[in-house]
Amino acid sequence: MHAQQMISTHPHVKGNTNDALIRCIEECYSCAQACTSCADACLGEDMVNQLTQCIRLNLDCADVCAATGSIATRRTGSNEEVIRRMLEACAVACRLCGEECERHAGMHEHCRICAESCRRCERACREALSSMAH
Amino acid sequence: MHAQQMISTHPHVKGNTNDALIRCIEECYSCAQACTSCADACLGEDMVNQLTQCIRLNLDCADVCAATGSIATRRTGSNEEVIRRMLEACAVACRLCGEECERHAGMHEHCRICAESCRRCERACREALSSMAH
Amino acid sequence: MHAQQMISTHPHVKGNTNDALIRCIEECYSCAQACTSCADACLGEDMVNQLTQCIRLNLDCADVCAATGSIATRRTGSNEEVIRRMLEACAVACRLCGEECERHAGMHEHCRICAESCRRCERACREALSSMAH
Amino acid sequence: MHAQQMISTHPHVKGNTNDALIRCIEECYSCAQACTSCADACLGEDMVNQLTQCIRLNLDCADVCAATGSIATRRTGSNEEVIRRMLEACAVACRLCGEECERHAGMHEHCRICAESCRRCERACREALSSMAH
Repeated sequence: MHAQQMISTHPHVKGNTNDALIRCIEECYSCAQACTSCADACLGEDMVNQLTQCIRLNLDCADVCAATGSIATRRTGSNEEVIRRMLEACAVACRLCGEECERHAGMHEHCRICAESCRRCERACREALSSMAH
Repeated sequence: MHAQQMISTHPHVKGNTNDALIRCIEECYSCAQACTSCADACLGEDMVNQLTQCIRLNLDCADVCAATGSIATRRTGSNEEVIRRMLEACAVACRLCGEECERHAGMHEHCRICAESCRRCERACREALSSMAH
Repeated sequence: MHAQQMISTHPHVKGNTNDALIRCIEECYSCAQACTSCADACLGEDMVNQLTQCIRLNLDCADVCAATGSIATRRTGSNEEVIRRMLEACAVACRLCGEECERHAGMHEHCRICAESCRRCERACREALSSMAH
Repeated sequence: MHAQQMISTHPHVKGNTNDALIRCIEECYSCAQACTSCADACLGEDMVNQLTQCIRLNLDCADVCAATGSIATRRTGSNEEVIRRMLEACAVACRLCGEECERHAGMHEHCRICAESCRRCERACREALSSMAH
C-alpha cells in the first residue's frame, strides 16, 4: 500500500501529511481484508455453527473498515465530523471483532491473526482521532 | 428492494421485523445510489470547480450509506453497538451532504433530488436509532 | 430508489436515459441487499454447515452487484468496456447464486426470495448489455 | 496487509496457497486505495475540469478492485467462474485507468504513482488468471 505517497502528493497536502491518519488508512484496508478472510475461514471450519457470531462481527468489521479507509483517504474540501464518527465506529467494530476472534485464537490460527489485525486497526483509529483533536 | 421480505424470513426474526430499521436499510441503499449519481453529475457540470466540496461529501456519504445498509441488514448474532454507531455516523453524513446539496438545488436538479434522498435517509437513521433505544 | 430521476438530470444525459441500464442499476442495488441478507439468514440456520456454498455465493454476488450498481450509475466521460465486463460478471454471479439459492428454496424462504432477486438482476444485466450493443 | 498469513490458515488451504492469487489480492486492495486517493487529488487540482475522465476511471477502478480483492480472498466452497470474470474485469479497469493516469503523470505526481499501482494490479490480475488456468 502506498497511501503515504499518494496522499503526500495531493495538491492541498503538499507533503504535509498526518502520519497517524495515514497509518490508520493502511490498517483499515488491511483489516478489511483480514476480516473478509477470517469470516470465510470460519465458514470453512467443521464447527461453523459455533462461529456464527464471529462471522457476523467479521463481516460488519470488514464493511466499517473499508468505508473508513476510503473516507479517511479523501483530502479535498473537508468532512471532519464524518471522518471522526467513522474512526470511532471503526475503533468499536475492531474492538468487538478482535475480542470475539481472541476467544477462538487458541483453536483457529486465522482468528488469532485477525484479532491482531483488529487490535492494530483499533489502536490506529484512536491515534488518528487524537491527531485530529482540536 | 425487498428488505422487508428478506429480513422477515430470517430464522431468528420469524416475521417479527423492526419496520423502522428496515425502512432505514432501504433508504441507505437508495441514498448510496443517489450520492454516487450526484457526485458523478456534479463532475459532469461545466462549473465542476465550484462543486468539489459537494462531490467530496457525496462520495463520503455514499460510502457510509453502503456500509450502514449492509451492517443494518444482518440479524444473526448481535452487534448493536456497531449498528448504533453506524446509524449515527450515517445520519451525520446525510445531514452534511444534504445541506451542501441543498445549496446547489436551485441550479442543479440532481443536487435537489439528492438532498431529498439524504434528508429521508437521515430521518430514517434517527428513527431506526429510536426504535433500538433501551 | 430514484436512479431514473438522478441519472436523467445528469448534464450529459438531459433526460435521454437508457432505461434498460437504469432498471439494471436498481436491480443491482436490490440484489446486493438480498444477497447480504440471504448470507446472513443462512448463517442463522441450524443447518448452516449445509449452506456454506450458498453463503459463499451470496457474499460474492453481493460484492459484484454493489460494484456494478455504482459503476453503471456513472455517466461522466466514458468507460464502456468496464461497464460491459462488470455487467457480464454480474450476470454470471447472479446466475450461479440464483441456481444455488433455488436448491434451498423449498426449505428456506429467504433462499427462494433471493433466487428471484438474482434472476431479475441477471436478466436486467443481460438486457442492459443488449441495450449497449454496437 | 497479511493476506498470505490469513489465507494460508484457512481450513481448506492448509498452507497450500496460490501465491499469484495472494499477490493479486494485495494489489487489488492497494490499487483501490490509490485510485480513491487519485480521484480525490484530481478533484483538488485547479484544472479539475481537465481531469474529469481521469476521476471517472479512478472511481470505477476503485470499485472493481475492492470487489475483486474481497471475492478473490474467499476460499470456502468454490466460485471460480466469478473470480475469473472479476480478475478479467479488474485487469481491464486497471489498464484503462493506468493509461489515463499516465497521460497526466508528467504534471501530477499522484497520477504517476496511481498509474504504477494500476499497472502492478493489472499484471497481478493476469498472473492470477494464468495460475488458475485449467
